[in-house]
Amino acid sequence: MSFKNFKVVEKLIFGRGSFNQLDEVLAAQRKSADDFVVFVVDDVHRGKPLEGRIPLKAQDLLLWVNVDDEPTTEQVDGLTAEVQAFNGKLPVSVIGLGGGSTMDLAKAVSLMLTNPGGSAMYQGWDLIKNPAVHHVGIPTVSGTGAEASRTAVLCGPERKLGLNSDYTVFDQIIMDSELIDGVPTDQWFYTGMDCYIHCVESLEGTFLNEFARAYAEKAMDLCREVYLGDHPEKDDKLMMASFMGGMSIAYSQVGACHAVSYGLSYVLGYHHGIGNCIAFDVLDEFYPEGVAEFRQMLKKHNITLPKNICKDLPDDTIAAMVKVTKSMGPLWANVYGEGWQEKVTDEMLTALFRRI
Amino acid sequence: MSFKNFKVVEKLIFGRGSFNQLDEVLAAQRKSADDFVVFVVDDVHRGKPLEGRIPLKAQDLLLWVNVDDEPTTEQVDGLTAEVQAFNGKLPVSVIGLGGGSTMDLAKAVSLMLTNPGGSAMYQGWDLIKNPAVHHVGIPTVSGTGAEASRTAVLCGPERKLGLNSDYTVFDQIIMDSELIDGVPTDQWFYTGMDCYIHCVESLEGTFLNEFARAYAEKAMDLCREVYLGDHPEKDDKLMMASFMGGMSIAYSQVGACHAVSYGLSYVLGYHHGIGNCIAFDVLDEFYPEGVAEFRQMLKKHNITLPKNICKDLPDDTIAAMVKVTKSMGPLWANVYGEGWQEKVTDEMLTALFRRI
Repeated sequence: MSFKNFKVVEKLIFGRGSFNQLDEVLAAQRKSADDFVVFVVDDVHRGKPLEGRIPLKAQDLLLWVNVDDEPTTEQVDGLTAEVQAFNGKLPVSVIGLGGGSTMDLAKAVSLMLTNPGGSAMYQGWDLIKNPAVHHVGIPTVSGTGAEASRTAVLCGPERKLGLNSDYTVFDQIIMDSELIDGVPTDQWFYTGMDCYIHCVESLEGTFLNEFARAYAEKAMDLCREVYLGDHPEKDDKLMMASFMGGMSIAYSQVGACHAVSYGLSYVLGYHHGIGNCIAFDVLDEFYPEGVAEFRQMLKKHNITLPKNICKDLPDDTIAAMVKVTKSMGPLWANVYGEGWQEKVTDEMLTALFRRI
Repeated sequence: MSFKNFKVVEKLIFGRGSFNQLDEVLAAQRKSADDFVVFVVDDVHRGKPLEGRIPLKAQDLLLWVNVDDEPTTEQVDGLTAEVQAFNGKLPVSVIGLGGGSTMDLAKAVSLMLTNPGGSAMYQGWDLIKNPAVHHVGIPTVSGTGAEASRTAVLCGPERKLGLNSDYTVFDQIIMDSELIDGVPTDQWFYTGMDCYIHCVESLEGTFLNEFARAYAEKAMDLCREVYLGDHPEKDDKLMMASFMGGMSIAYSQVGACHAVSYGLSYVLGYHHGIGNCIAFDVLDEFYPEGVAEFRQMLKKHNITLPKNICKDLPDDTIAAMVKVTKSMGPLWANVYGEGWQEKVTDEMLTALFRRI
């Protein structure tokens, strides 16, 4: 048996107001006068105070990205081409400032600047050949764990699947809970539940070890403080939950909920956070305790999930979702262990989707 | 306010039997045929099965180290000179295989191979100028957190103090709980309590943030499972407690117990783990709940601490310990915050030591 040699974000800053240190972090990367930095920023921040705080120099490139839809391989290839057209040399750093989707776009661009071909070629596990450009993650929404993970999840021509590699991991993250202050309640909830749910999947999975367990247990405890209590430090705690949840799945794997949610996102365009919540709500059989506690959290925050989404969809739409969901081998291996192929049938998945 | 940009061990392997992967890890460092590796190994493993499992090549250097006494700057300088005499070029990796003392020796040697002068010059904070040789930590006793920390604690000509720097952090750690199987009960207890105690100090300290809190709380929970319960996975859990405790103090600071323990170690030669336990047992006023729970753990494992060690010592011996303890500024700043200098008086510390 061989154990994963787990690549971790090697530098991190945590603290309210620490975003102000980004300029200093980048100064260490800027070695000659024409060195430039690329900022990939969620366009919800356009025209907001955060825009004015971005330490942009004259030679830098700011790319606003819209992540109303899930990020795509096409979008990544477009952004990469923009960077290449902007300056013939490589940037010294790529900054992702936003939620999981924006951070994943920044990770993907930093990889595609040094790896030839389109990003869809690299959807999968350990297909990336060359180290990325230095890249920095700065969450402004917390829960996905993208700041800690070795993936950049993209919708590609065939499916939604990450660029999973050691090179995907950020070189630096800045966790400033002031930045997650103004997130709308529903998004705050759905994104935080991404963390809660992947911890459940990690803890109930067959890949679990005591490393992943310790992280997932603590991340769940923190989610409880945030979503069932009303702790004064809840923004900081959610930020830590997200980071620790990411650390847990990086050394284990997500499970049935993410597999189903990937199908939902890919075919119906649901965003990752809400997609997970919709999927989790029908997975009592897989995760009875987790789903029960999740419903308490839903209730406490008056969140109503969309219902009967798939009930009346045409069979071929359901079949398309089943196909994506079924293809998530490592996730199902985590759920069932060896022999998962016999358990993950079209019938089982079709019945699941019809209940969504 | 500026927040620390925290350097973390960037690659880690966790799992029972993962020591077998060391050869593969080193293969990635060995680039030319005469590249050599230095193994710094606790001599308790001499002649034991672990010795035969060390992936030593003909060109490598194996340094057995004795850590019955606390590691010293002199010992580090001697080991560094041995490496330099062995081969004119730098090793491609330095491996520390043992407990906290051995890992600290390996860290210190990896630093001193690339930084001129004696190691005592670098006792303090951020005095190291050049990156270290690639270095790998492999604990065979758990609790110190040395595998995760940015320090290598040494007794020098003037005091016991670490080489604290980003470069001190291991490039790779391997956490294989099989290796901590055969640790004698008293050492298992004292070293594990190092973790428990520095979590108490971190959680009660003024430097605490939610990052350090999350890690310290989880490490303490794991210590409870190990030392108050009797969990079948207790070796894995202790290994995680140690790692998470190290992550917590790396982003906060230890406190009164470590300050007193440093004095005890430096003057009377007590090893770090037992020194902490002896000191903690008189610190009810600082950490009432932590000390009470610690005594439950002592009782459960039938550990009897030495008593009345300092009661009858000459005044100048006590004064020497007080001097070392008082000099630990950052630790006292963590205990009392600003103005700690007024509170940490010779009288207070002398009274404390007389009760030990």
